[in-house]
Amino acid sequence: MSKPYVRLDKNNAAVLLVDHQTGLLSLVRDIDPDKFKNNVLALADLAAYFNLPTILTTSFENGPNGPLVPELKETFPNAPFIARPGQINAWDNEEFVAAIKATGKKQLIIAGVVTEVCVAFPTLSALAEGYDVFVVTDASGTFNELTRDAAWQRMSDAGAQLMTWFGVACELHRDWRNDVEGLGQLFSNHIPDYRNLINSFNTLTSGK
Amino acid sequence: MSKPYVRLDKNNAAVLLVDHQTGLLSLVRDIDPDKFKNNVLALADLAAYFNLPTILTTSFENGPNGPLVPELKETFPNAPFIARPGQINAWDNEEFVAAIKATGKKQLIIAGVVTEVCVAFPTLSALAEGYDVFVVTDASGTFNELTRDAAWQRMSDAGAQLMTWFGVACELHRDWRNDVEGLGQLFSNHIPDYRNLINSFNTLTSGK
Amino acid sequence: MSKPYVRLDKNNAAVLLVDHQTGLLSLVRDIDPDKFKNNVLALADLAAYFNLPTILTTSFENGPNGPLVPELKETFPNAPFIARPGQINAWDNEEFVAAIKATGKKQLIIAGVVTEVCVAFPTLSALAEGYDVFVVTDASGTFNELTRDAAWQRMSDAGAQLMTWFGVACELHRDWRNDVEGLGQLFSNHIPDYRNLINSFNTLTSGK
Amino acid sequence: MSKPYVRLDKNNAAVLLVDHQTGLLSLVRDIDPDKFKNNVLALADLAAYFNLPTILTTSFENGPNGPLVPELKETFPNAPFIARPGQINAWDNEEFVAAIKATGKKQLIIAGVVTEVCVAFPTLSALAEGYDVFVVTDASGTFNELTRDAAWQRMSDAGAQLMTWFGVACELHRDWRNDVEGLGQLFSNHIPDYRNLINSFNTLTSGK
Amino acid sequence: MSKPYVRLDKNNAAVLLVDHQTGLLSLVRDIDPDKFKNNVLALADLAAYFNLPTILTTSFENGPNGPLVPELKETFPNAPFIARPGQINAWDNEEFVAAIKATGKKQLIIAGVVTEVCVAFPTLSALAEGYDVFVVTDASGTFNELTRDAAWQRMSDAGAQLMTWFGVACELHRDWRNDVEGLGQLFSNHIPDYRNLINSFNTLTSGK
Amino acid sequence: MSKPYVRLDKNNAAVLLVDHQTGLLSLVRDIDPDKFKNNVLALADLAAYFNLPTILTTSFENGPNGPLVPELKETFPNAPFIARPGQINAWDNEEFVAAIKATGKKQLIIAGVVTEVCVAFPTLSALAEGYDVFVVTDASGTFNELTRDAAWQRMSDAGAQLMTWFGVACELHRDWRNDVEGLGQLFSNHIPDYRNLINSFNTLTSGK
Amino acid sequence: MSKPYVRLDKNNAAVLLVDHQTGLLSLVRDIDPDKFKNNVLALADLAAYFNLPTILTTSFENGPNGPLVPELKETFPNAPFIARPGQINAWDNEEFVAAIKATGKKQLIIAGVVTEVCVAFPTLSALAEGYDVFVVTDASGTFNELTRDAAWQRMSDAGAQLMTWFGVACELHRDWRNDVEGLGQLFSNHIPDYRNLINSFNTLTSGK
Amino acid sequence: MSKPYVRLDKNNAAVLLVDHQTGLLSLVRDIDPDKFKNNVLALADLAAYFNLPTILTTSFENGPNGPLVPELKETFPNAPFIARPGQINAWDNEEFVAAIKATGKKQLIIAGVVTEVCVAFPTLSALAEGYDVFVVTDASGTFNELTRDAAWQRMSDAGAQLMTWFGVACELHRDWRNDVEGLGQLFSNHIPDYRNLINSFNTLTSGK
Repeated sequence: MSKPYVRLDKNNAAVLLVDHQTGLLSLVRDIDPDKFKNNVLALADLAAYFNLPTILTTSFENGPNGPLVPELKETFPNAPFIARPGQINAWDNEEFVAAIKATGKKQLIIAGVVTEVCVAFPTLSALAEGYDVFVVTDASGTFNELTRDAAWQRMSDAGAQLMTWFGVACELHRDWRNDVEGLGQLFSNHIPDYRNLINSFNTLTSGK
Repeated sequence: MSKPYVRLDKNNAAVLLVDHQTGLLSLVRDIDPDKFKNNVLALADLAAYFNLPTILTTSFENGPNGPLVPELKETFPNAPFIARPGQINAWDNEEFVAAIKATGKKQLIIAGVVTEVCVAFPTLSALAEGYDVFVVTDASGTFNELTRDAAWQRMSDAGAQLMTWFGVACELHRDWRNDVEGLGQLFSNHIPDYRNLINSFNTLTSGK
Repeated sequence: MSKPYVRLDKNNAAVLLVDHQTGLLSLVRDIDPDKFKNNVLALADLAAYFNLPTILTTSFENGPNGPLVPELKETFPNAPFIARPGQINAWDNEEFVAAIKATGKKQLIIAGVVTEVCVAFPTLSALAEGYDVFVVTDASGTFNELTRDAAWQRMSDAGAQLMTWFGVACELHRDWRNDVEGLGQLFSNHIPDYRNLINSFNTLTSGK
Repeated sequence: MSKPYVRLDKNNAAVLLVDHQTGLLSLVRDIDPDKFKNNVLALADLAAYFNLPTILTTSFENGPNGPLVPELKETFPNAPFIARPGQINAWDNEEFVAAIKATGKKQLIIAGVVTEVCVAFPTLSALAEGYDVFVVTDASGTFNELTRDAAWQRMSDAGAQLMTWFGVACELHRDWRNDVEGLGQLFSNHIPDYRNLINSFNTLTSGK
Repeated sequence: MSKPYVRLDKNNAAVLLVDHQTGLLSLVRDIDPDKFKNNVLALADLAAYFNLPTILTTSFENGPNGPLVPELKETFPNAPFIARPGQINAWDNEEFVAAIKATGKKQLIIAGVVTEVCVAFPTLSALAEGYDVFVVTDASGTFNELTRDAAWQRMSDAGAQLMTWFGVACELHRDWRNDVEGLGQLFSNHIPDYRNLINSFNTLTSGK
Repeated sequence: MSKPYVRLDKNNAAVLLVDHQTGLLSLVRDIDPDKFKNNVLALADLAAYFNLPTILTTSFENGPNGPLVPELKETFPNAPFIARPGQINAWDNEEFVAAIKATGKKQLIIAGVVTEVCVAFPTLSALAEGYDVFVVTDASGTFNELTRDAAWQRMSDAGAQLMTWFGVACELHRDWRNDVEGLGQLFSNHIPDYRNLINSFNTLTSGK
Repeated sequence: MSKPYVRLDKNNAAVLLVDHQTGLLSLVRDIDPDKFKNNVLALADLAAYFNLPTILTTSFENGPNGPLVPELKETFPNAPFIARPGQINAWDNEEFVAAIKATGKKQLIIAGVVTEVCVAFPTLSALAEGYDVFVVTDASGTFNELTRDAAWQRMSDAGAQLMTWFGVACELHRDWRNDVEGLGQLFSNHIPDYRNLINSFNTLTSGK
Repeated sequence: MSKPYVRLDKNNAAVLLVDHQTGLLSLVRDIDPDKFKNNVLALADLAAYFNLPTILTTSFENGPNGPLVPELKETFPNAPFIARPGQINAWDNEEFVAAIKATGKKQLIIAGVVTEVCVAFPTLSALAEGYDVFVVTDASGTFNELTRDAAWQRMSDAGAQLMTWFGVACELHRDWRNDVEGLGQLFSNHIPDYRNLINSFNTLTSGK
């Protein structure tokens, strides 16, 4: 009865960043803003690091929802960017689905704001079409923990795998020897405790 | 093994509001009262906004449980209102089930007080009869978080989909273009952060 | 894929109270002691109220675990009481299982201390033998919330239904008209907020 | 649809301790450090007490991750100890899997740091190969509770059983009479409340 | 600059129970209802146990605030009971102040609902008139913790001593030898953990 | 050494509402938004109810901070409204201080966003000039609880009295008989639990 | 108006350990038991390390309160040990005060169970007699956080300095050069994170 | 009896950063690491922005405590940097005090790790010598909240003012018009919610 182990494969994965907009972010209250900002940027950086095809989309960005967070645009200057004219479920936007299909990938890594809508709806739609969906829970935010818990349960029951950006990075990388420097830098940039470990280590060993 | 994605359809959904009574509300301690009141009224407003058939029911309203919250009666002056003479599970009341069947809808959106009884029992009964049930978790309240968690697990295991009023509204509406003003007003009335975004936006753009 | 709705039936249910001992209770830290004591006594009172066959058991009661809480012995002076000589899983004690079989009931309502052992082990064993098991989560206690969450997940995955004493009472009673006074008294004795509602109501209506 | 009850059997179980390293431990923030240290040592002590074959592994122990916690090395001086040269998922290391196969056991008890990677990845791999996996949740740690919850859900959905060290000890021991002294000592050493019960009891009965 | 140590003296202390009414109690959300009920009754029992002059008062008890909790009336059938016709600060009611003065005591032990009004106002007034005031914080309740914290700070700054019912009982009793049985019974009735200790102890020593 | 009891007097009090602006409100994370919105409007309503002179001020309202919350403008259409050109401490704005002096009141009731700046700075300045300052803690918000706690301590040490809107209303009103209806309506509008009490009461007594 | 800085001086300080008994410890619920046990033993170890005169006392140790925690007796085999016959406030026991006076020290470092009684009462008494009192807050425990907060406020207002065992150790030691090894060992034994730092450091530098 | 309002003055203030070292930071568990890192860097940036004389100091930086966080060194390349040879209280180091005196400032803004030692000790010493001390609470960290609360109380009682970096920046800046761009940039860099407000605003107004 169990879900099989679908393992993230950097050659078969695409990243969907849904509605990380400057207005909508003020709705996020289930994660502290300093941590949430860091998590979203960490996910963006890992997508760039692994050269994963990444798709950006926004909802009504000319209205109160506000524009896409500028850092995301800067990290992915050439990524498909679908400013949806009205569809709440991004999967209802043909251009968005076409962009996903164009990647040829079957594993979708998704994050967005707010979790129970902008993440859950396309997740459920993608699962229904046979994709493997990996929700980056800590780069997705919503109104409060109660809402988050309900959304997680709904997505998990439908077959999604709940992960965090750090787990995604590790499952994609597989082996430190593929690039110790690069992965270490990613962690140093986004995990203060890891950065401290590295700084302590480097200080002690630099003179050797 | 996963639950299929059953998507809320405004042409196939009815709303059940179970036992939101002035006495019983004093039992609710898993959600702050200001927020809970807002969530219940938001659910009522969205039911009215989408013209969903809505059914009200109460338990022993002439006793300590108290009358139905007046705002609900005012919002749905013509809705079926079943003051149950004793059945704890509203589904045991034939009039209640008949009212549901009369709607002809197969998707039931349910909320009530207290979660593990007034919501869970009819949810489990409805699922057993083949309905799709969407529990509005944040418009349902109970004694404490432990009780809530157990009730959620029981309903989810039985096939219910756990949602919140905001997710319900978004899944019903599908596309902002169906009515930008109306949905925006609903959100402005019940999400202070969204109201602030809208007020900021309107101030900046009103002079354009 | 969903669990079917197995509804508690007062003619087909027995109650198992496992290891509520004066020493072991000092280990319980996932529920406040005032509330936990109340929940355990509420469960005992409802078992007595519905005349459910009830089985008591203890582990090593002559050692540091201490004797059974005296109130439980007083409530069930004639109930089978199995002081297990060493088996940690009560289901490994033949006398305990024989007592259950002697009731002829197929629905087992269980609570105990500590949740992940004294409750979870017999729950899993009973499920494996085809019983329907209803865990009274709020009359079961353990070291901390992390431990509780893991135990709940294990039992729920194995088929148990997670409930609370209030939900059990309501599902057994079915209809207030079966005995308004009795159920009201049970709630008044164990739910302070309900007691207040009743006292307010009685004061206002006593003079009518 | 339920998971069957797989019961831990001391003749069929092995213990995997993954990446409890002095550097990585500074990343653990979902459990208080005093409690976490105690839980890890308790798991080690129970593995030794039951003579379970135990396998140690580390990731990059010459870098910032730091060496294995010395107490674990001291408890298992002759255990297989695989210092992985780079594989993040220990199951990708052939030596690690070979060591497991060499034990001939089919039940794997696993704990490590961090939960969603060092524990979850080998858990998912072992389940995929048909092992029964028991995750010792309280001897596994990670960045925060959100991350832990997502990791638990992923592992549980894949078939893992979530336990704690105390539950593992009890399920392995089965019956206090197998060795009252030994199990009591284990609990006294790692559960302060139990130690107090034993000390109170011994004082009162020592003079008898 | 420090407050001097004013020690409670059972010959110089009176107890004021302000507005513990069945309606107002539904406003209390900074303490769990099971615990709060226990704390209020514990304070009443200790007042009775030490024969402290006790004064009861209510606000608008014929309206929504509801009647005094019946248990309090039963515990103090002959105590002065001032049903205030409208004064929010009980100290503004001459009858209330006269009742206090009639006791001849200079140490006032006070508790009530809600903390920042029904407790704080008469506390501040009594301090201004030179009384020593001991606030029983855990038998006083209010809307939430933020409100409580502000009220505590205001009262403490004005010279009140913040205590709990257990501390009050101990400071009044001074020496267990004054009455071991009586104090032990009080604690056994209102502190489940203490009751367990006593039951364990009695079981072990009863046969001696 | 204690602070004397300075009692709010409706004839000697003015209200200062500082920087409740639509943008700045997104910074408030120490109080839930539904509750915070309610608290701010409750304070406004009580100021209007007691006819207290009220002064509004904003900081940079044409920039990202956004305009004053519209409801406040609507409640006080004729109140002095000082849009500060740059001063962070409102007390540094001569017009603001002049407006306060023009009221002739010596008791200042203050609330604002964010607590440690927009509330604390003018509070400290006003205290230094000999005013009595009453901080409405629950109508003031800031980034997190740590920040709030530090700000409260600083203001309290400087002589401010920490209150909440409900306490302010009660201390101003003094006696229900001054206007039962009016105060009851204020509470019914802003305290859901009180509203429920009143609705239950009215239903039971309306037929008498 | 401020408290002057009284600095702990190892030549002028004595330690009082009050009622850390095996039964009473089951009452402590404001600190996790693993952490609390560690804190108490850390305080004992530092008292031994600095050769501070230490006084042990218990309350009714032949009753349900239980004997002194054995580790404390072992650490201080020759310390004055006053088993009080009944006095709740240890300061009411002449032998206890005499033992303190015999040390000739004026700075008292105190910890015990429960905070608001066994710690607060002698603290207030000692302050009244002119001692400087340093409460070791994290080696003192009580029923819950509300109780703790009230007790801290009462002691602090009376002139006590609130510290923790780590702060006490550091203020006594003054300069690492007085004994790097000894202090480091104390911290390694009782602060897991510090132990990890030291182990990481030693591993990296041991080969130099 | 109140503390007077000492207002931060950018011409009379110096900043002390004490022991923000890569090893010691792993001890900080009362603030989330992402937020804490941000707070420390925000304080550094504001010190640089206001050109406040800044003094860095470390404790045993060649041992397990680790080196100063590199970002701080980079921000203040020319600041006095005192690597203390052993003194735990930085004020015991003559070089440190001399560096402070050399600034000629009387207002000391201090932050460090851990709060109750590295911050509290020099704070108490500086107060004793007549300095005004402003503790930046959110750029100071320690083992847990209990420890923090005790440390705050001790420092506040001794005369310190508890602030946060945002409050410090605002009190130093006094008036936005002194430099709108600069202060806005500081906030945008360290307050994600403020950054979002600014980005939304700029997008809407950029086309005007």
